[in-house]
Amino acid sequence: MTEPTAAAAVLTGMAGAGDELQSLYRRLHAHPELSMQEHRTAGLIEQRLAVLGMTVFRCGGTGVVGVLDNGPGPTIAFRADTDALPVEERTGLTYASTADGTLADGTSTKVMHACGHDTHVASLLTAASLLHGARAEWSGTIVFIFQPGEEIAAGAQAMIDDGLWERAPKPAVILGQHVSPGPAGVVGHCTGTAASMADSWEVLVRGRGAHGSQPHHSVDPIVQAAHTITRIQTVVSREVDPVDAAVVTVGKFAGGTKENIIPDSAVFTLNVRTFDEPLREHVLESLRRIIRAEAMASGAPEPEITELSRFPRLVNDAEVTRRAVEALAAQWGQDGVTEAQPLMGSEDFGALGDAIDAPSCFWFIGGTDPERHAAATAAGTVSTDIPSNHSPFFAPVPELTLPRMVEAAVVTSLEFLERP
Amino acid sequence: MTEPTAAAAVLTGMAGAGDELQSLYRRLHAHPELSMQEHRTAGLIEQRLAVLGMTVFRCGGTGVVGVLDNGPGPTIAFRADTDALPVEERTGLTYASTADGTLADGTSTKVMHACGHDTHVASLLTAASLLHGARAEWSGTIVFIFQPGEEIAAGAQAMIDDGLWERAPKPAVILGQHVSPGPAGVVGHCTGTAASMADSWEVLVRGRGAHGSQPHHSVDPIVQAAHTITRIQTVVSREVDPVDAAVVTVGKFAGGTKENIIPDSAVFTLNVRTFDEPLREHVLESLRRIIRAEAMASGAPEPEITELSRFPRLVNDAEVTRRAVEALAAQWGQDGVTEAQPLMGSEDFGALGDAIDAPSCFWFIGGTDPERHAAATAAGTVSTDIPSNHSPFFAPVPELTLPRMVEAAVVTSLEFLERP
Amino acid sequence: MTEPTAAAAVLTGMAGAGDELQSLYRRLHAHPELSMQEHRTAGLIEQRLAVLGMTVFRCGGTGVVGVLDNGPGPTIAFRADTDALPVEERTGLTYASTADGTLADGTSTKVMHACGHDTHVASLLTAASLLHGARAEWSGTIVFIFQPGEEIAAGAQAMIDDGLWERAPKPAVILGQHVSPGPAGVVGHCTGTAASMADSWEVLVRGRGAHGSQPHHSVDPIVQAAHTITRIQTVVSREVDPVDAAVVTVGKFAGGTKENIIPDSAVFTLNVRTFDEPLREHVLESLRRIIRAEAMASGAPEPEITELSRFPRLVNDAEVTRRAVEALAAQWGQDGVTEAQPLMGSEDFGALGDAIDAPSCFWFIGGTDPERHAAATAAGTVSTDIPSNHSPFFAPVPELTLPRMVEAAVVTSLEFLERP
Amino acid sequence: MTEPTAAAAVLTGMAGAGDELQSLYRRLHAHPELSMQEHRTAGLIEQRLAVLGMTVFRCGGTGVVGVLDNGPGPTIAFRADTDALPVEERTGLTYASTADGTLADGTSTKVMHACGHDTHVASLLTAASLLHGARAEWSGTIVFIFQPGEEIAAGAQAMIDDGLWERAPKPAVILGQHVSPGPAGVVGHCTGTAASMADSWEVLVRGRGAHGSQPHHSVDPIVQAAHTITRIQTVVSREVDPVDAAVVTVGKFAGGTKENIIPDSAVFTLNVRTFDEPLREHVLESLRRIIRAEAMASGAPEPEITELSRFPRLVNDAEVTRRAVEALAAQWGQDGVTEAQPLMGSEDFGALGDAIDAPSCFWFIGGTDPERHAAATAAGTVSTDIPSNHSPFFAPVPELTLPRMVEAAVVTSLEFLERP
Repeated sequence: MTEPTAAAAVLTGMAGAGDELQSLYRRLHAHPELSMQEHRTAGLIEQRLAVLGMTVFRCGGTGVVGVLDNGPGPTIAFRADTDALPVEERTGLTYASTADGTLADGTSTKVMHACGHDTHVASLLTAASLLHGARAEWSGTIVFIFQPGEEIAAGAQAMIDDGLWERAPKPAVILGQHVSPGPAGVVGHCTGTAASMADSWEVLVRGRGAHGSQPHHSVDPIVQAAHTITRIQTVVSREVDPVDAAVVTVGKFAGGTKENIIPDSAVFTLNVRTFDEPLREHVLESLRRIIRAEAMASGAPEPEITELSRFPRLVNDAEVTRRAVEALAAQWGQDGVTEAQPLMGSEDFGALGDAIDAPSCFWFIGGTDPERHAAATAAGTVSTDIPSNHSPFFAPVPELTLPRMVEAAVVTSLEFLERP
Repeated sequence: MTEPTAAAAVLTGMAGAGDELQSLYRRLHAHPELSMQEHRTAGLIEQRLAVLGMTVFRCGGTGVVGVLDNGPGPTIAFRADTDALPVEERTGLTYASTADGTLADGTSTKVMHACGHDTHVASLLTAASLLHGARAEWSGTIVFIFQPGEEIAAGAQAMIDDGLWERAPKPAVILGQHVSPGPAGVVGHCTGTAASMADSWEVLVRGRGAHGSQPHHSVDPIVQAAHTITRIQTVVSREVDPVDAAVVTVGKFAGGTKENIIPDSAVFTLNVRTFDEPLREHVLESLRRIIRAEAMASGAPEPEITELSRFPRLVNDAEVTRRAVEALAAQWGQDGVTEAQPLMGSEDFGALGDAIDAPSCFWFIGGTDPERHAAATAAGTVSTDIPSNHSPFFAPVPELTLPRMVEAAVVTSLEFLERP
Repeated sequence: MTEPTAAAAVLTGMAGAGDELQSLYRRLHAHPELSMQEHRTAGLIEQRLAVLGMTVFRCGGTGVVGVLDNGPGPTIAFRADTDALPVEERTGLTYASTADGTLADGTSTKVMHACGHDTHVASLLTAASLLHGARAEWSGTIVFIFQPGEEIAAGAQAMIDDGLWERAPKPAVILGQHVSPGPAGVVGHCTGTAASMADSWEVLVRGRGAHGSQPHHSVDPIVQAAHTITRIQTVVSREVDPVDAAVVTVGKFAGGTKENIIPDSAVFTLNVRTFDEPLREHVLESLRRIIRAEAMASGAPEPEITELSRFPRLVNDAEVTRRAVEALAAQWGQDGVTEAQPLMGSEDFGALGDAIDAPSCFWFIGGTDPERHAAATAAGTVSTDIPSNHSPFFAPVPELTLPRMVEAAVVTSLEFLERP
Repeated sequence: MTEPTAAAAVLTGMAGAGDELQSLYRRLHAHPELSMQEHRTAGLIEQRLAVLGMTVFRCGGTGVVGVLDNGPGPTIAFRADTDALPVEERTGLTYASTADGTLADGTSTKVMHACGHDTHVASLLTAASLLHGARAEWSGTIVFIFQPGEEIAAGAQAMIDDGLWERAPKPAVILGQHVSPGPAGVVGHCTGTAASMADSWEVLVRGRGAHGSQPHHSVDPIVQAAHTITRIQTVVSREVDPVDAAVVTVGKFAGGTKENIIPDSAVFTLNVRTFDEPLREHVLESLRRIIRAEAMASGAPEPEITELSRFPRLVNDAEVTRRAVEALAAQWGQDGVTEAQPLMGSEDFGALGDAIDAPSCFWFIGGTDPERHAAATAAGTVSTDIPSNHSPFFAPVPELTLPRMVEAAVVTSLEFLERP
């Protein structure tokens, strides 16, 4: 008779944990918090980890770390991010968020877990509980990292700056996962570059205000900003090699208070995605050039560009990725894993391993009902039918998604730990 | 020995009223209130009129009317508007505003008397006091109208709807004045059309949100709005007869909350100025067409257009204007009055007379230090050197401006009243 | 019995001249020639003037001057311009042009009298014939000026440079007329500025060519030019005082030879109209700034701007205009003359008088069937229903228009000559 | 002693053929001809093939086919394309082209072998001569295809329509090569999709002409086209998945004849590159939508879209490619071949094999001095320093490039033929 694998043994606990997993998820979903303001979420995590008897500490403000020391053997780390987004939820779910939040600039906003970090937290807490409950099946140390502020590329660095790797044991491997619009429970993986670099700027366009009836007395910053946004479309359409990937998004535009007053200034924010440092530098330089040139075209002073965030590239270690994927395939069959292209999305996960030169692997796991996904794929309407991350309609199907996320966390963690 | 004119007699009171006029102005300037929210200002006006013993009543919410019945003779009306603007003052004056306010959409804003309505209130209250103090010099009835909400074309109609002309005696003539960037104390007048029609719209551009890295999953409303704003420049540049006058201003643009989220929608507001009904209709129709077309270009649903306000044309009666201007010229000499082109600015003053078919006259009176104005004129830099109405730097020189505004109100009022 | 006026006497000749006038017009219309290439037209004019026995000479290349010396008295000049345009006629007239021509840059084009200079030539030749035939009725000297190259602002200067005023007697008054889309035979006149200044530029946008599949190897001059044209719409829409008049037209755009080659460069031409020197300078400076800025936005070298032509302002002398209009009103009644706004169109007519400080008057005379014009006016569709000058459909109704143009030339000329 | 390979035996002839190869190339380069007008080139090819004693026939107008029947064994085909481009050469070479040509629309143009088809012709003629001279070394049949009109996707289809595969023996394999900006003599190869699909359109924008001073009487087609070109940048920047490849190039824009006439219409041409049929359809549909929408924004009628050409996808057979590349590597070492990404460039080569279901392989071969290429690569300036195909500066270094192209043709042909 074959001995069951450690994973199988740990996962026997899933049967009893399912209801709690779902209700934990709904609670997190209903109470999203903005980046670096995850106070309630951090409290809940702390309390959940503490009852398991492990060492728990706050790190980087609203970050929480739990260290589960289970005897000799390797140390690994698994990370979940915890923050939500300034999006007004429109899913119509019974547990949809109605939460409010306040952005850094003081404006208030609705808040939503529109990027699915609630699934990350719920599944990692549940995996922690199962791994703790089946301590006899494995040996080593797991560092559970609940990181705040991923959406603004602030949280990983904040935890490192707050002594993460002095206060927790240094892991040999760091793992992480992210829910995506793919078919529920299927892991998409890639080696090498796994997510794009992202640079975000705020651009303050400065003109000269005047009464709306006297445009000739003004230097109209709204017209200038509109032309700038129009003009920067040419960076991707004309300056980037068509076989390379780059994105320039203007996510926010704010200027003026009243229809008949030409304001003194307007603000817009840019988000730039690239996979490659020379291209990144080229795109950023082109944007700077265009922003300056459109100010010149308006006869306006040079706009002020403020860097909001800078996401590094996320690189998956080849060997760690191979082992993690093989472990998942052994658990689920080959249908459960699929090779994926690097994503345009960005992540500050990579910073955690870079700080201590630890190899890491980060994968995506689908959250969409597989039949719906298959139908949309057949119809060629995935992009319009299935809400993507950051959409106000983003809603992973929790029954199919969460258990697989728990399994993925358990199986890959055990791959890098030891049997006692 | 010639008897002094009624004006000269009334204005002898100016000697003692100057300090109070200036301090009243500074108080009003420091406490601006947004349109239809002029509660504090209305209270102050009420109290000032009440101490003069005249009949005072609220009308149209924050509007105030004072009726000074001084025996047999004609009835005239003089109007001052009372509201301020959502502009953050940058004049650096010791009595500059730091006031906050809340716009109709709930956003908070700094507030400033950037259109000089504080000068209108201060000078008309002072004129009322002088005319009251010299009741022996004239005969008839003056209706002092302190109108709210001029900036949003709401206050005149609100007063009419609230029974203004049932509650106050109907005047034979209605007068009003507005401070401008011209040389201090010089009246600019014109006959016939004196100010443009103005139409304001809010345009809700509806796209489809997505993560900022996935533009192909979105219909980007910020790009759509930017192209729309760019495209509507062609209405004035290509569709309006060059010898006609029209303005299309986008005074406000708001879309998105975060640089890496493409929002579902964006909003911008339009303000359109024309002098002529067929041209007005042509421009509005072209704007509708372009707004729809740019949505079509984006593959987006048709934007929602909401009318925010509609200012009628302001027409000065030829005979009333002639008499008012001659009275001012008799008081100040010909240098004190100058013919002016109709202004692109709009006014709901005209609605007050239109409601009862009373002829009216509305003039502009400069607020800029004459030497500064002359120097800028010589240098051809009036438009850049002298802040115009609605600018955060707009600041009439009160010492030179306010006494002349009081004189103008007294002199023109007496022109249409009788000597006892 | 009252003696008939000189005009009546001269115009008795019209009865017999009508058929020839119409056939001369059709011949000119069918054979248009481009600016400064009016060889055939000049030959025809020369021959027609020569048979009248007057002194005829060529001047300024294809210009023709006829001097009709008829005894003592004042000298006056009357000018007609002779050139046609690179427009492919689409009127469908039996005598429509099918002529070809070659532009300065060597490209071939269809040619059309789309500005009606054929009516100017036909009517002035006929007027010359009538005035010659009735020499007994008047005394003095008339200089008939048939000027080439008006459309490119080259011909008046070319004639002056070629000794026009040394070779012909200097006139006390210079007259000229231009057919327009107004009601046939009605003269529109104004005093002072009668036509705008016009500046024309050619802009050479220099990028870097590449295969159409490799935009990143190019600096795309077509995209740069398109953005420049888009951007310069803001000069009129935002930088010009709405009550001032200015036009910026891009009349030509040429770039590239093949859809899959990004060219090295592109060319467009600009035409700018203003009435006022400071505004002219402001508009030209703004255009230079925008052209440079859009090159900067593309990372391209500064475009080359070449001045193509510069039309001066056309000023009508008040006294000469008054007399000319009164003479026409005496001939036709007040319905035959109407005050007009200064036109955005440009003219080099003014240079002829400016060169010798002679006062001049230039008027417009309608060419549209009056019923059609009245119907379009009532329907508010003049601008869409009635082809304007330079349109491929421009077609004055010759039966109604030409006789009135002859009359106008005769009547106004006689006004400034003497009875013997 | 090992017998030399057939390739080595055939290529011994290179020693004596080098000078003639270079002089043939310079002759072709100096006399380029536009697509489907390659009369002189076809004559030269015919004559060169005829002297070798093989069967030669014209096919598809200016196409030439030579059939070298050399006994039993397989039949293969090797294709060279022969046409040049409407580009004015700026290489400064002593043998640079000064040739003129006339485009389909009648306009004249300078012509240049800016895509290097002259290297294709010279090297394939030389290879044919060597293979003919060493007939003893191999057995089978080679069909030499000299195809016209590749640049307009017309020639391959014209040859097929003219009975190519009825008149020549059907080959088992079809081969072809194209010079590129890579290091001289290095073959870049890929399997599967090797070049993009390309669709070309001409877009006729129809407005309403008017005098340049009267934009309000016009519907300005140049402004409409400029806004359309500006707007279509958003297809690639916002509608295409960043990790997919697509290009939309406007290669030609022509509108108007004179700066002060707003024309009735303008024309621009579009070239669209995609690798994938659903994306192709999406991009074309978006372009149609935007072109229509911008006409609507102008109040203009719907533009007319005419398809100019449609290049199919070029697919390299895996097995044929493997064998061809291995044969080249055996000849030159592994440094001589390199895997390449599919190119955005398009080709109608694929149509030749598709017509008879024959597998084919098409590769690129560099033409740039290797040291120059290495320096530019190190400096990151390949795209700016090295002229790409279709540039007026495109100039492969013939001494290094042509012999390798001959070798490549000989070696790969022999790979699919037999030893006797």
